[in-house]
Amino acid sequence: MLGGYAGKILRIDLTTGELHNTFYDEDTLRKYLGGSGLGARILYDETNSDTDPLGPENLLIFLTGPTEGTRMPNAGRYQVITRSPLTGSWGEANSGGKWGVKLKKAGYDGVIFKGISPKPVYLNITEEKAELLDASDLWGKDSFETDEILRERHGKKACTCDIGIGGEKMSLLSCIMNDGVDGRTAGRCGVGAVMGSKKLKAICVDGNVKTPIINELSLNQSIKEWAPKIMKDMEALREGGTSCAVPFIEEIGDIPIKNWAQGSFNVENLATPVYNAKFLSGRYGCANCAIRCGRIVEIKEGPYKCEETAGPEYETLGLFGPNCLINDLGPICKANELCNRYGIDTIGVGNAVAFAMEAYERGLLTEEQMGCKARFGNAEDMLTIVHKIGRREDFGYYLADGTKVAAKVLGGIAEEFSVEQRGMGFPAHDPRYADSIGLQYAVSPRGACHLSANCHGQEYGGFYGGFGFYRSIKLKNHSIENKPEMNVELEHIMCLCDSLTICKFLLDATGDSSADLLVSWLSDITGWDLDKEELIKIGERIFNLKRMYLVRDGQSRKDDKLPQRMRKRRMTGGSANNIPDIDSMLDRYYEIRGWDEFGIPTEETLKRLDLLDTL
Amino acid sequence: MLGGYAGKILRIDLTTGELHNTFYDEDTLRKYLGGSGLGARILYDETNSDTDPLGPENLLIFLTGPTEGTRMPNAGRYQVITRSPLTGSWGEANSGGKWGVKLKKAGYDGVIFKGISPKPVYLNITEEKAELLDASDLWGKDSFETDEILRERHGKKACTCDIGIGGEKMSLLSCIMNDGVDGRTAGRCGVGAVMGSKKLKAICVDGNVKTPIINELSLNQSIKEWAPKIMKDMEALREGGTSCAVPFIEEIGDIPIKNWAQGSFNVENLATPVYNAKFLSGRYGCANCAIRCGRIVEIKEGPYKCEETAGPEYETLGLFGPNCLINDLGPICKANELCNRYGIDTIGVGNAVAFAMEAYERGLLTEEQMGCKARFGNAEDMLTIVHKIGRREDFGYYLADGTKVAAKVLGGIAEEFSVEQRGMGFPAHDPRYADSIGLQYAVSPRGACHLSANCHGQEYGGFYGGFGFYRSIKLKNHSIENKPEMNVELEHIMCLCDSLTICKFLLDATGDSSADLLVSWLSDITGWDLDKEELIKIGERIFNLKRMYLVRDGQSRKDDKLPQRMRKRRMTGGSANNIPDIDSMLDRYYEIRGWDEFGIPTEETLKRLDLLDTL
Repeated sequence: MLGGYAGKILRIDLTTGELHNTFYDEDTLRKYLGGSGLGARILYDETNSDTDPLGPENLLIFLTGPTEGTRMPNAGRYQVITRSPLTGSWGEANSGGKWGVKLKKAGYDGVIFKGISPKPVYLNITEEKAELLDASDLWGKDSFETDEILRERHGKKACTCDIGIGGEKMSLLSCIMNDGVDGRTAGRCGVGAVMGSKKLKAICVDGNVKTPIINELSLNQSIKEWAPKIMKDMEALREGGTSCAVPFIEEIGDIPIKNWAQGSFNVENLATPVYNAKFLSGRYGCANCAIRCGRIVEIKEGPYKCEETAGPEYETLGLFGPNCLINDLGPICKANELCNRYGIDTIGVGNAVAFAMEAYERGLLTEEQMGCKARFGNAEDMLTIVHKIGRREDFGYYLADGTKVAAKVLGGIAEEFSVEQRGMGFPAHDPRYADSIGLQYAVSPRGACHLSANCHGQEYGGFYGGFGFYRSIKLKNHSIENKPEMNVELEHIMCLCDSLTICKFLLDATGDSSADLLVSWLSDITGWDLDKEELIKIGERIFNLKRMYLVRDGQSRKDDKLPQRMRKRRMTGGSANNIPDIDSMLDRYYEIRGWDEFGIPTEETLKRLDLLDTL
Repeated sequence: MLGGYAGKILRIDLTTGELHNTFYDEDTLRKYLGGSGLGARILYDETNSDTDPLGPENLLIFLTGPTEGTRMPNAGRYQVITRSPLTGSWGEANSGGKWGVKLKKAGYDGVIFKGISPKPVYLNITEEKAELLDASDLWGKDSFETDEILRERHGKKACTCDIGIGGEKMSLLSCIMNDGVDGRTAGRCGVGAVMGSKKLKAICVDGNVKTPIINELSLNQSIKEWAPKIMKDMEALREGGTSCAVPFIEEIGDIPIKNWAQGSFNVENLATPVYNAKFLSGRYGCANCAIRCGRIVEIKEGPYKCEETAGPEYETLGLFGPNCLINDLGPICKANELCNRYGIDTIGVGNAVAFAMEAYERGLLTEEQMGCKARFGNAEDMLTIVHKIGRREDFGYYLADGTKVAAKVLGGIAEEFSVEQRGMGFPAHDPRYADSIGLQYAVSPRGACHLSANCHGQEYGGFYGGFGFYRSIKLKNHSIENKPEMNVELEHIMCLCDSLTICKFLLDATGDSSADLLVSWLSDITGWDLDKEELIKIGERIFNLKRMYLVRDGQSRKDDKLPQRMRKRRMTGGSANNIPDIDSMLDRYYEIRGWDEFGIPTEETLKRLDLLDTL
C-alpha cells in the first residue's frame, strides 16, 4: 500500500521526443525515499564512469519526495541529480520555492531526461498532459524573462524552472533556476550545463492534483500544533535572513576574506540593520514554509538598480562581499540579481571573481585578458566580471567553468589559490575555523558542500543535539574531538532531508523532536511503519550509495582533501593559525563509517546497508 | 688565478660525434664550485620546461668538483646532473668509488653529453685523447660484464661507469653504475635512462695527471693531522657499515615495514652481528676515504649465491628487508647484486617490489599480470620481481618506471599506497618518525631524497651541531620546533658537499671543525679566499637555483607534499600515531628562506644570491 507516494516519474528521451510514465516499487521507495536518495539509486544504475556529463547518455533527474505536496511544514523542495560536468562524478543540487510542489500537483514525483534534443525545447506539464514544445524563441533569454514569457503563455499560476544564458553556454557554474524573480536556485555542480547540453530551456508546470495522504487527520493535528512553534522558534532567521549573523561569523573567522587569504574585514555595512533598513522590501517563504527566511530587495536607482527580486543569502553575501573585499550591499544585491538572470551559481561565481582579483593583483591575469580591471574592493570591476562570466566573454570564458579550470589555464601558481574541492568552489564557511567544516568538504560526495553535514551552526553554538536520532555532544571549537562522530550522524540526517525533500532549517526548529516528527509525519503520509532506527539507516544507505558512485569513478581517500589555501594559516582574526587536521579525522571517520583505510565501504558495511550490488 | 681548478669540461654531441673542450671562468666556478652547483647552473641555462628528458636536447652532465683528485679525505665523488625522466624536472645523482677521481686524473673536471648517438657507443678517455667507440658488442651486457670487458680492453687500471639493461631499456629507476663489481651507483632520478636514451653504454677513464694545488704543503699538513682523527671517530660506521643501527632504527619507527604500512617487525637477522658473521668478506673504501663504510659480501652457495661484490647499504636493506617483510640477509644481498647488474636503483626497486606485493595482497595485481606470485615475506617472489623489473617483463615493465607509473596503470586505490614524492620512491626513513624528514622530502628538488638535508642522524641524536657554519640546537623528536631552521641550514651544507664533491660522512667526523676545514682546504687547493659566510652562501645559492629550476617548470607549494600513505598513521611501533605537520613547517621554512607564501624565492632573495637572471 503506497499511500500518496508511488514514485510516478515522467521519462523523456529528448533525442527522440518520446515521453512515458514509470512507477517505482514500494521496496525501492522505502529504501531510498525520493529526491537525493532515489536519484542516487537511479544515477548509479543508469550512468557509469564512461558517461559524458554533457553527452546524450547522461540523465538529468528532477525529483521531489514523499512529503511533497502535503501540508507538512517546510516540505516543498526538489532535487536535481545528474552526473556532474563540474565534479566529473556525482552531482546534485536542490532548490526551494514553489516549483517542486507544483510538479507534484501536476501529478508527478519527478521527471527524468535523457538524450539531446535536436533543437531548443521546453517541457510543459499540466494535470492533463505533458508535452515538449519549441523553445527557439526562448533560447538566449535570461531566467527572469523566460519565466515571464512562459507564465504569460501558460497561465500566471504556472511555475517554471529554466536555465539562463549560463546554462545555454554550458558554463560549469550554471544553475537551474526556478520561480522567476523569486530567484530560487538548484545552484551547484553545473546542473544548468547539463540542461543546456540537452537543449532543454525550461520546465513549466501547473496542476491541482491533491496528494493522497493515508492518515490526514493525524498529520493535520500534529502540524497545527507544530507550525506556530516553528514560526516562533525561527524568528531571528525570519528577521535577519540567512545572513543575520554576519558580524559574528566574521569575528570568529568563518567568513572568507580576500579570496580566503585575509583574517579580518570590516563587515559593518553588510549587517542586518543596514540590510533591513536600506534594501529590504519584503520577506519570502517557499511553499509550506513556517519560517520565511527569504528576503526581497529593491534598489530604486543608481548603478545597482534592481526591481523587486530575491536578496542575497549568507553565502552570496560572504563570497561577493568580504571575499572580494566589498563592504557595500548595493553591488552584492546587483551581483546576486545578475547571477540569477544568467543562471549561474553565486557561490561558484563569487569564488571565481575573487580568484580573478587575486590573479590580477599578482600580475598573472592582465587587464587585456580579463577585458577589464579586476581590483579587490572595486564594485564596478566585480559586476563587470560577473557579466563576463555570465556571457563567457574574455577570460570570463574560463572563469565560467570555475576556478579549477581557470587556474589550469593560467598555470604557474594559480592553482595555489583556487579554492575548491572536487572542482566545486567553497561556500562561505572556512575549514580553518572549524575542523568539522573541513571534514565535511573533504568527504562530501559533490565536493565543497556546506549542507552535506550542515555543521557550522553546531560549531557556532558549541553543541550538537543529535536531532532525536542520536545522543547530544558538547563541542570544542578548533578541536577534532567528536567531530568525525558528529559529521557522520549529520550526514545521515541531511541525506534524509534531501530525500524527503524538506528544508534543513526545519530540524533547527524541531530540535530533539525531529526524529519522532519525521517518523510520524512520514507514517501519516505514506502509511509506512518505519521507526527512527530504520529511517536513519536510510540516510546512511544513501550516503554510502553516493560514496560508491565516487568509488566506481576511482575516487578514494586520496580525493578526500582540501585545497592548498586551506593548508595555509590565516594570520589574523578568529581562526588565525589553525589548519584543519583532516588526516587524523579521516582515520576515525572511516572507522565509524565501516569504510576501509582508503575510504572504501567494506563488504560488511555494504551488506548491512543492502548495497551489496554496488560491490 | 685558478689554481688546480679550471672547470675543464669535455663536451660531446652524440648525434654528430663531435667532441670539444670548454673551460669555465673563475667567477662562475667561485659562485657554483662544481658538481651539483655548477651542474645546476648549466642545466638551468641549457635546458628548459620543453626539454624532453629522453630526447636529444637533454644534457647528461658528469661533474667532479674542486677537491677531486687531491688528497683531501673523502673527496672523491662525482655528480650526474640531468633533466630527470622520473621527476619530470630537476634531476641529479651522485656516486663514490674511484671513477670520479680517475676522470680528474685523465685531465677533466667533467663531461657533458647532448644528442643521441645513431648506434651504441662508449666514451674512452685517457690523458692522451678522448674518443667515442662502438659499443654494439656491449649493448645487452650487464654492468659488471661491461666493466670487465672494458678493463680487459683498456687496462686494469682504467675505471668505468656504465648502464646495465635497465638503462638500455630506459627504465625510470635505472642508474649509472661505476667501478664494476664494487657496485657504486649514481642511483636516483632515472639518470641511467637518460644515458640509455643517448645510446651511451659506458665511459671508460684512465690517467695519472696530478691535480695542481696552490698550497700543497699546508693541505698535506692539515690532512696528516685530520685523517687519523676521522678514521678513529668513524670506527662504528666502518665496523657496521651504514646499516649498523638497524635494530635501533626499527625500534624508533624510522624503517619502512610492509610497504610503509606496518609499525614493527623483527629485524634480528638483519643486524650487524649476523651481517658480519655470515656475509661479510671484506670492507671497502672509495678513493681517498678515511672511513671505509663499504661492505663486501660473498655467498658461496645456495639460491642467493654471490661472488664477492658490494653488500647492501642501509637503504637497500630497509627497502628489500622489512619493507618486503623479509628478515634474511641472503636474498637482500642477492637483490642488491641483481640491481647492480641490471643497473637499477635499489631504493626505487625496493619500493616497487613492496608496492607490487601490496597490490597483489589486495587483489589489484594478479599472478598472471605479474608473471609470478608477489607475496610479502617471500624471498623467491621478491627476487623474481627484481628480475622482471630489470628486464621490463610482464608487470615489471611498469614497475621499472617506479610506483607512480605503476599505480596509474593499476588505477583504483593503487595510488593510495604508492610512496613517492615528485615521482621518486622514498628512501628508508619515515616522515612519521621525524617531521624534519618529511619536510626534507617535501621540498627536496629531486623529490624523496634523504641526503638533501641528511637530517635523520640529527633526529636520532636529538642534536644538530651546525657543523661550524651555524649555532647548535637541541632537538625534540615528534616536534616541529626548530626543524625548518635546521633543514634550511643542512640543505646549504649538503649542497656544498655535492658541489665540492665530497662525502657527507666527512662532516660527521669533523663536526664543529667542518666549516673551518672546508674553508682552509678549499683555499689551499684553489687559492680562493672564500670565508665561511661566503662559502655557505654558495650552498644557499645552489639550493635556490635548483628551486628556480622547479619553479620554471610550474612547481610551487602545491608540489611540496607527501604521498597519501604518510597522511595515515602507523598503528604500532616507535612512530605510531604521528603525522608530520608539513603545512605548519612550510610557512616557517619559506619565511626563513625568503620565499613567498607559495614557495617561490622573492626578488630580494634572488638578488641577494646573485640569481636575478632566473626571475
